[in-house]
Amino acid sequence: MRCELNFWVAGGDLRQAKLAELLAADGHTVHTWALGGGEPLSGVREEHSPEGAALAHCVILPLPAEEEGGLLHTPLWKDPVPLTRLLDALKPGQLVCAGMAGPNLTALAAERGLVLQDYFAREELAVANAVPTAEGAIQLAMEELPITLHRARVLVLGCGRVSRALAPRLVALGAKVSVAARKWSDLAWAESWGCTGEHIGQLAGWLCGYDLVINTVPAPVLGEHELADLKDGCLVMDLASKPGGVDLSAAAGLGIKVVWALSLPGKVAPVTAGQCIQTTIYNILHELGV
Amino acid sequence: MRCELNFWVAGGDLRQAKLAELLAADGHTVHTWALGGGEPLSGVREEHSPEGAALAHCVILPLPAEEEGGLLHTPLWKDPVPLTRLLDALKPGQLVCAGMAGPNLTALAAERGLVLQDYFAREELAVANAVPTAEGAIQLAMEELPITLHRARVLVLGCGRVSRALAPRLVALGAKVSVAARKWSDLAWAESWGCTGEHIGQLAGWLCGYDLVINTVPAPVLGEHELADLKDGCLVMDLASKPGGVDLSAAAGLGIKVVWALSLPGKVAPVTAGQCIQTTIYNILHELGV
Amino acid sequence: MRCELNFWVAGGDLRQAKLAELLAADGHTVHTWALGGGEPLSGVREEHSPEGAALAHCVILPLPAEEEGGLLHTPLWKDPVPLTRLLDALKPGQLVCAGMAGPNLTALAAERGLVLQDYFAREELAVANAVPTAEGAIQLAMEELPITLHRARVLVLGCGRVSRALAPRLVALGAKVSVAARKWSDLAWAESWGCTGEHIGQLAGWLCGYDLVINTVPAPVLGEHELADLKDGCLVMDLASKPGGVDLSAAAGLGIKVVWALSLPGKVAPVTAGQCIQTTIYNILHELGV
Amino acid sequence: MRCELNFWVAGGDLRQAKLAELLAADGHTVHTWALGGGEPLSGVREEHSPEGAALAHCVILPLPAEEEGGLLHTPLWKDPVPLTRLLDALKPGQLVCAGMAGPNLTALAAERGLVLQDYFAREELAVANAVPTAEGAIQLAMEELPITLHRARVLVLGCGRVSRALAPRLVALGAKVSVAARKWSDLAWAESWGCTGEHIGQLAGWLCGYDLVINTVPAPVLGEHELADLKDGCLVMDLASKPGGVDLSAAAGLGIKVVWALSLPGKVAPVTAGQCIQTTIYNILHELGV
Repeated sequence: MRCELNFWVAGGDLRQAKLAELLAADGHTVHTWALGGGEPLSGVREEHSPEGAALAHCVILPLPAEEEGGLLHTPLWKDPVPLTRLLDALKPGQLVCAGMAGPNLTALAAERGLVLQDYFAREELAVANAVPTAEGAIQLAMEELPITLHRARVLVLGCGRVSRALAPRLVALGAKVSVAARKWSDLAWAESWGCTGEHIGQLAGWLCGYDLVINTVPAPVLGEHELADLKDGCLVMDLASKPGGVDLSAAAGLGIKVVWALSLPGKVAPVTAGQCIQTTIYNILHELGV
Repeated sequence: MRCELNFWVAGGDLRQAKLAELLAADGHTVHTWALGGGEPLSGVREEHSPEGAALAHCVILPLPAEEEGGLLHTPLWKDPVPLTRLLDALKPGQLVCAGMAGPNLTALAAERGLVLQDYFAREELAVANAVPTAEGAIQLAMEELPITLHRARVLVLGCGRVSRALAPRLVALGAKVSVAARKWSDLAWAESWGCTGEHIGQLAGWLCGYDLVINTVPAPVLGEHELADLKDGCLVMDLASKPGGVDLSAAAGLGIKVVWALSLPGKVAPVTAGQCIQTTIYNILHELGV
Repeated sequence: MRCELNFWVAGGDLRQAKLAELLAADGHTVHTWALGGGEPLSGVREEHSPEGAALAHCVILPLPAEEEGGLLHTPLWKDPVPLTRLLDALKPGQLVCAGMAGPNLTALAAERGLVLQDYFAREELAVANAVPTAEGAIQLAMEELPITLHRARVLVLGCGRVSRALAPRLVALGAKVSVAARKWSDLAWAESWGCTGEHIGQLAGWLCGYDLVINTVPAPVLGEHELADLKDGCLVMDLASKPGGVDLSAAAGLGIKVVWALSLPGKVAPVTAGQCIQTTIYNILHELGV
Repeated sequence: MRCELNFWVAGGDLRQAKLAELLAADGHTVHTWALGGGEPLSGVREEHSPEGAALAHCVILPLPAEEEGGLLHTPLWKDPVPLTRLLDALKPGQLVCAGMAGPNLTALAAERGLVLQDYFAREELAVANAVPTAEGAIQLAMEELPITLHRARVLVLGCGRVSRALAPRLVALGAKVSVAARKWSDLAWAESWGCTGEHIGQLAGWLCGYDLVINTVPAPVLGEHELADLKDGCLVMDLASKPGGVDLSAAAGLGIKVVWALSLPGKVAPVTAGQCIQTTIYNILHELGV
């Protein structure tokens, strides 16, 4: 990466605001547009029109990049901003990094000959985001449970990235943790972290011992049959993206509290989430030889 | 301890309610009086007058036991209850376990020839309560900070029980932790846990690197001079009992956020706090040969 | 798995001896043949000829299964044992579980219509073995180094299974750990465990700060150029299978101590290694519906 | 502490050699006498007579300082060295720091008007030494046991400094750890670290579940009655100073392996042990205003 680059950060929430400041702190020239928020950002130039973006080495769109109707995602900005307002200002061959680039943005970028990179699709960002997700889950569990996580009996469903960040942290806090998964090797990993590995095949019948059940599997795993097996006062937390893994209406009928927690990094640790995006963008630039 | 005892749990909050249920779950006969709260407690007899307490092997008063005006501490009960209403029903020689027994309760018990034991004064309860206090501090830090504790720079002031439960947990969550204390041996303990030990003598001048400062010392340690040294956005948490260790008006003047968190076990984990009291009362009974 | 099975454990070292005892302790009928070792195994029948193996539900060969010259691997047995001596006694369709089945064994089994399964090729055994490997590496480092792992500066090269078991354990013991890997996502994992992630591309130039360098990459990563960069007294440990990742002659020339540690599970924790094989065989039986 | 001091390091083993190098690396003038060992120490002047020690700000004797017969402890030196040979060269008022100063050395120093400080008697050194002691115990357990510490069932007897460093490390490595102690508050600490707390009163009758029993109590706790309760293959490690806590002849009669591990820091991590002594001597100088 060359010493100093010209970044444009367009739209977004607190994560993008922090990202802009971090890029500036590294010595880069950083412009924001349509970002908003409260106070001016340190070392960053707020722009009133996107024209100067044609000079950027890298234009950064938020996570998610777009909203319905072809709009840039600008939750902190006063007016709706069409994506084309920005993209039309760019020149063919310019690099645009965006989070969750959908078909619309992809098509718009292709029409204009832009080099579009989706940072949210990269594995290193998913891994890095697992840490704030795990901390967010721990925070929510601490808020909701009348017991400490220390000595609590916790079941984690699934053994993907979030579980790999979460389960060892729960163990470190003194919880008794089981991890249920389908692959034998995942059960071996769970044992390696000091958890008990359980085959996820048949959940109902042995769920009644847990104080907290955390799902990370984006498939229907906790239906009425399984929920009925939980003990009174057991908290259910669903970290799986839509449609989630918990039958919410069955849970409501059974009087079971379910916390469905989505997009935790941006909510519980926006500054850390901005740092994770920064690292990923640096990796993209490194790979492209910018 | 004999197999089955007769307990009376009088007054108190959710901790005492849970304590009553836990004692009953162990097979004891448990009566409550002036406790209140929502639903009936499992396996517990709610009494309408204290007369039967004369038959108890152990009468348990809450934490704290009394309020101003000679009243029993009954936050969940509809009417004020004078301590004498209960104590007058007891017989000389009966065991009364109370939390934070003050001069008034001590005198009333002595007049009536009661055996008064303060469970809150016992070291094992203080140690056990350090765990929910540490978890409560972690929860509050996660709620307030826009960064993860993972990789956060945290300074813990003091090296008593709470710090000994808290600092290793912060390390386990990936924080970079320093512990400031006066005794060389406490600095050695801090190093043993993977923290950096710092002599507390002169704080101002090196506080500017921390994202979070947690005080546990019940003495004025963070005055205007020290607070002015903190970096923008640093969170200050005071876990020290009154009068605390932070100059709150200086902090307000400097625009520094201070979270003064007292009595965390009963707030963040009342069920665990009830279990801790139960264990302590069992220890008292064991020592008294009941 | 059916309640009681008939196992034959043929050949092998202490791991197979323990495996036989563990299978017997689970209620199975277990025969050993050509295993040897000191005392009789608890609950196990030692056989003098392989004929009865034709009745086994599962015949278990050791890890590795064969030696040069078509021999069964029998390090504790007095005489050489041709593989065919055992295989000729089996019937077509019988299940044979072996570790590191090579082309010779595979051909011999195919000729006889045997169902050959290589338990060493299974991911869950590799994951489970990473734990004793990590403990063995910790033991060797403690033996060789004149400093504690606590506060030692350790570099782990590679981010595969062994590193994933080892790096978090080193962190838990208070070491300052860096993990060098090629994939950005592996660097993110390293950070998640509390390590520093370093890109492995160019090692020479920043190796001089480490007290211990542990290689897990089966490729030449520590050549003369890199070794010359290590500080005096730095210990090098190579956990990579042959040909290893360290230039041993260069290290000898530079006076650098290298510990090349292969096959640690069977050496440092044969009983645990036997348990890992047992779990894997149960998984195979489960999948085959035996 | 003044910027540069004049130290004399007299006698001792590898710890003192490392101590001399560390003091020199901090910019002090360091002389050694009667230390020996192999190669010359970096930045350190080896003296052939003790006369120059009269100019030292601090004379450092080893740990232990003296041997029988009034000799300086000089395990690496060729000839016996009487303590008086050194002390006679000093002037009244000079500071002498020694480890385990006995009555003889104390009297000799008093006669000469020397200021004698015993660094081994200081709490911070005892705490710091608990870390290499814990690592040494872990190393020995890994060497002796045929199972991993991961998932091993370990009982730690006593809850002093060594146990406080050791038990959390065993937990971090995945062992299932119980701590037996007399004080209720120590049991609460054990629970805080994720161990099970057991009252030490009556050991026999529940010892049979452990794979490893580590004693830290300097009193007879494991007699024939208790040893007979251990399961086959259980390893006993005694970390208590003489006379230890294990009946060795009873253990021999029962065929139980006992590892009696004394003075681990100097054996398993002499460099770290030297650093611990250095820190303690700096603390002494700080307190004396040198």
